[in-house]
Amino acid sequence: MSYRAPIQDIRFNLRHLADLQGVLALPGFEELSEDLVDAVLDENARFVEQAIAPLNRSGDTAPATWSDGKVTTSPGFKEAFEAFAQGGWQGLQHDVEWGGQGLPKLVGAPASENINAANLAFSLCPLLTDGVIEALTAVGSKAQQSLFIPPMLEGRWTGTMNLTEPQAGSDLAQVATKAVPRGEGVYGLFGQKIFITYGEHDMAENIVHLVLARTPDAPKGVKGISLFIVPKFLVDADGSLGERNDVVCASLEHKLGIHGSPTAVLMYGSNGGEGATGYLVGEENRGLEYMFIMMNAARYAVGVQGVALSERALQQATAYANERVQGQALEGSAGPVTIAHHPDVQRMLLTMRGLTEGARALAYVAAAACDKSRRHPDPAEQERNKALYEYLVPVVKGFSTEASVEVASLGVQVHGGMGFIEETGAAQYYRDARILPIYEGTTAIQANDFVGRKILRNGGQVARHLAAEMRATVSELQAAASASTDHSDGLALIGRRLDAAVTAYEQATEFALKNSQASLPAVFLGSVPYLMLAGVVHAGWQLARAALVCSQPSVQQQAPEFCRQKLATSVFYAAHILPRAQACAQGITEGVVANRYAATTIGI
Amino acid sequence: MSYRAPIQDIRFNLRHLADLQGVLALPGFEELSEDLVDAVLDENARFVEQAIAPLNRSGDTAPATWSDGKVTTSPGFKEAFEAFAQGGWQGLQHDVEWGGQGLPKLVGAPASENINAANLAFSLCPLLTDGVIEALTAVGSKAQQSLFIPPMLEGRWTGTMNLTEPQAGSDLAQVATKAVPRGEGVYGLFGQKIFITYGEHDMAENIVHLVLARTPDAPKGVKGISLFIVPKFLVDADGSLGERNDVVCASLEHKLGIHGSPTAVLMYGSNGGEGATGYLVGEENRGLEYMFIMMNAARYAVGVQGVALSERALQQATAYANERVQGQALEGSAGPVTIAHHPDVQRMLLTMRGLTEGARALAYVAAAACDKSRRHPDPAEQERNKALYEYLVPVVKGFSTEASVEVASLGVQVHGGMGFIEETGAAQYYRDARILPIYEGTTAIQANDFVGRKILRNGGQVARHLAAEMRATVSELQAAASASTDHSDGLALIGRRLDAAVTAYEQATEFALKNSQASLPAVFLGSVPYLMLAGVVHAGWQLARAALVCSQPSVQQQAPEFCRQKLATSVFYAAHILPRAQACAQGITEGVVANRYAATTIGI
Repeated sequence: MSYRAPIQDIRFNLRHLADLQGVLALPGFEELSEDLVDAVLDENARFVEQAIAPLNRSGDTAPATWSDGKVTTSPGFKEAFEAFAQGGWQGLQHDVEWGGQGLPKLVGAPASENINAANLAFSLCPLLTDGVIEALTAVGSKAQQSLFIPPMLEGRWTGTMNLTEPQAGSDLAQVATKAVPRGEGVYGLFGQKIFITYGEHDMAENIVHLVLARTPDAPKGVKGISLFIVPKFLVDADGSLGERNDVVCASLEHKLGIHGSPTAVLMYGSNGGEGATGYLVGEENRGLEYMFIMMNAARYAVGVQGVALSERALQQATAYANERVQGQALEGSAGPVTIAHHPDVQRMLLTMRGLTEGARALAYVAAAACDKSRRHPDPAEQERNKALYEYLVPVVKGFSTEASVEVASLGVQVHGGMGFIEETGAAQYYRDARILPIYEGTTAIQANDFVGRKILRNGGQVARHLAAEMRATVSELQAAASASTDHSDGLALIGRRLDAAVTAYEQATEFALKNSQASLPAVFLGSVPYLMLAGVVHAGWQLARAALVCSQPSVQQQAPEFCRQKLATSVFYAAHILPRAQACAQGITEGVVANRYAATTIGI
Repeated sequence: MSYRAPIQDIRFNLRHLADLQGVLALPGFEELSEDLVDAVLDENARFVEQAIAPLNRSGDTAPATWSDGKVTTSPGFKEAFEAFAQGGWQGLQHDVEWGGQGLPKLVGAPASENINAANLAFSLCPLLTDGVIEALTAVGSKAQQSLFIPPMLEGRWTGTMNLTEPQAGSDLAQVATKAVPRGEGVYGLFGQKIFITYGEHDMAENIVHLVLARTPDAPKGVKGISLFIVPKFLVDADGSLGERNDVVCASLEHKLGIHGSPTAVLMYGSNGGEGATGYLVGEENRGLEYMFIMMNAARYAVGVQGVALSERALQQATAYANERVQGQALEGSAGPVTIAHHPDVQRMLLTMRGLTEGARALAYVAAAACDKSRRHPDPAEQERNKALYEYLVPVVKGFSTEASVEVASLGVQVHGGMGFIEETGAAQYYRDARILPIYEGTTAIQANDFVGRKILRNGGQVARHLAAEMRATVSELQAAASASTDHSDGLALIGRRLDAAVTAYEQATEFALKNSQASLPAVFLGSVPYLMLAGVVHAGWQLARAALVCSQPSVQQQAPEFCRQKLATSVFYAAHILPRAQACAQGITEGVVANRYAATTIGI
């Protein structure tokens, strides 16, 4: 089925939860208005619904093909990418200096969500290109920026990230690709990279590979990695294309999902010459640091992919449940009803909606923090928002993507037997979603980052601050429940459950802080549950804030149906999903004993 | 990778948890011994490892094909099925009267688990045939039994269940296939059936379709459905094959998983004649009742498939984790280690093991109850075990299959990026598992059965009895913790968590009983969480019982490594999985408010 951008929920989130007004008031965004943002998002919706979404299923059934080093993408992808570039969508969040639109991340995030929901496999090409632009903007030389960024913004060239090698998956210390200096910042690269998304394709004239490699005298481990630009075609000083570089696509992977996205094995310097020509970015041995700029942006973007995939699966399941007639209602008049009337179908749809809308709200709140961290006039506010954004990136990435697997799986289940038939489409989301908790750092990697850098390193300060803010929302909920005539029970329920979930969050945080010295493995045995706990609580907090807004008579009058839905989603989430926080905390806080036993199982 | 039957865990479960001795003492099983059971299971392991497991991946990549009504199964399947039949495996649990081995379900269950773990898609053929044999044994005429059962036991013929029609999925009241009487118990059938597993194939000489259809004057709804035998080839009185019946395979489905299993659309009576020849089973209009005999056996069997799929995914993930070297250990000496050393990989593997081994123990305990319900000399014990088995069937089906989806998903995650590559094999389990919570009654259908028939109908009596038994185990754990020197902390943890989980189980039960009159939808909004709660608690109870056994010095001396593993699994399950029971209960008990809000979302 076709995709409809969830414009109403997006706008609600931007305005009421993610402080769009505050972001638009930041220096540099003076010329923007809410109306302009609306217009951009409307156009975005129109474009992705018409040009991108229809290629989702066909990209799945007709994947990109490889022949003699050349890759032909799925039918229609090349034309869609051209339209994407002409619409200016690649430049949405990038600097006007190089031809971008310079819009806030808070506007870029929903636009990106829609593109990804329309077609996850297609959207990976712009997603990776975004990362390359972001990295070069931050650490490239002026010459590199002016040579490589504008063609990427125009969609004539695309970009890739080359980290993984067969022997080194998540462990970048093992990167072995060699970079032999030829002088003047030029190097010859030799090695093999795997899992390179859109590493070869026919949608653009050139491909800008950002490659991690080691120079001959580099120190071992992650401190000896440098970053190089390796274009598919060499580029003359005037930007015109020169000869083909010695980087070859040896094969494409046969994957579980995202079939429309070609995943390449790339060979660098395999032609027996002086290697693939690469240009050093920044300084030698600082490659990992630079790559992290790109990776943080990409991790956030993959979190948004999780929201997007969830939304798509939710839309299809909701439509099916309201169309498929089967069985009798438990109560009321006899006769067949749509399956949306059955309580368990409601449970599944509300679980899907709660996870989707909660993850969306959290992602947008994070985007606003990113914008403020860059542009807020008050340095203290910049600092506070920077800490918040960095804290939220692994949560958004880890929680939204794990949630998307659950949502897509429920989407299959809502369809019953039809869900298992490929033509229905629900199975594709289940397959596509499965990559999201893996690439750009597995959930475990996100959890390591979360516990190590975002909790322990600052002594739990950010977490304690958030707990206090969430408690304030609990108080608001209690007050609103007392004052409300229509929604007293619902608001009270949300307040009660959020309160308990915040307690769980505090318990997990205190456990991590207390045991980080004595038993780090005991802490890390619960690091993913802790990350999931944080996601569950923070998403639930945003849904609680949404419920407060939607219980206001003035808001209800404007959008009664929307408010009814949001309240139902928020109440359901509080009842059925927030309690997972306590379940996680109970596991985490048994970490010392559980770890002692778990350690005995290694090697079997 | 290849499959190894988990013989040690199977034996442990049979002896220490599922009362093998008690089952072997039942009337009719006098000639069996533990040694004989061991020999059967050893031979079963050898057979499935060598003959069935190697076809798992090839069946996935080379599915059955359809051409002009004929179906050719995946390479090797026909020969494997012949070997299966010659080994006598089809007759394992069936009556000696017709040529079966007459073994207890408690022996049949692990044998069936191994066959399914070796190759889920292959095993569906014997699984459905089992159901047909069981149904005809129970309700077929002597003539039907002697004509149709022996060839199925010999593997010359196979069987299918034909329930689903396009307009009627789970709702059998909508079945519309017509059966026009021709006299003397013979009918002409007209209609279309979908999702018919092994509805057409080339592995046997004939196929015995059991078909639900309506006679011309039948009442509406489920009380007007009759059951018919419709053989692919008509059968003469001496059992020789006659002409081809008018049942045609119109197409095969293109599915997410179990590619090796042909899923057929069957047309009955489409050749313009007097319909497909069918023979009435039992009496008219009692078809649903008869089909339930088959369905209960099939539901239990699908629950065992969940265990099997989980075991297979677990074995592959464990092997990979102990082979793949990546990253440094958190503590101890520097240098690369296998990923099994990383705490989060331990968490994933222990979650997989806990769910797999807990579900296995529960399934075997249910099998023993089934055997005792049929053969126990004391009628009161028969009755008690019958109630227990009937209570456990939806739990085994619902919990084991939902767990298998989680286990298979974790199995992909353990492999990181490699898990998303089809050649690795982990992705196949993720795809295959997804059908298990759907076919033979979705999880929601199991939950309806559980809450409606197994809780409310007996006033919660079975549940209260189980709660009391579980509390007794809690007391044993507390006593054992006080007495133990080595495992005091682990046993105490298990006791503490089991106690809390039993409380949650009681809360959910009381909520269902209390609200079944006033607000049935509020109860059914939480019916699947309640079923999952029951599964989590009962599986955890079995793992707690296993921990008690494994903490005994006499048992430890005999199998120290096994005991260490089982204790670690049980402790981990208690810490990280049992708390889900409380999370479920919290959602369930908010049902009244949550349902009031949920009901407002229908139709959007």
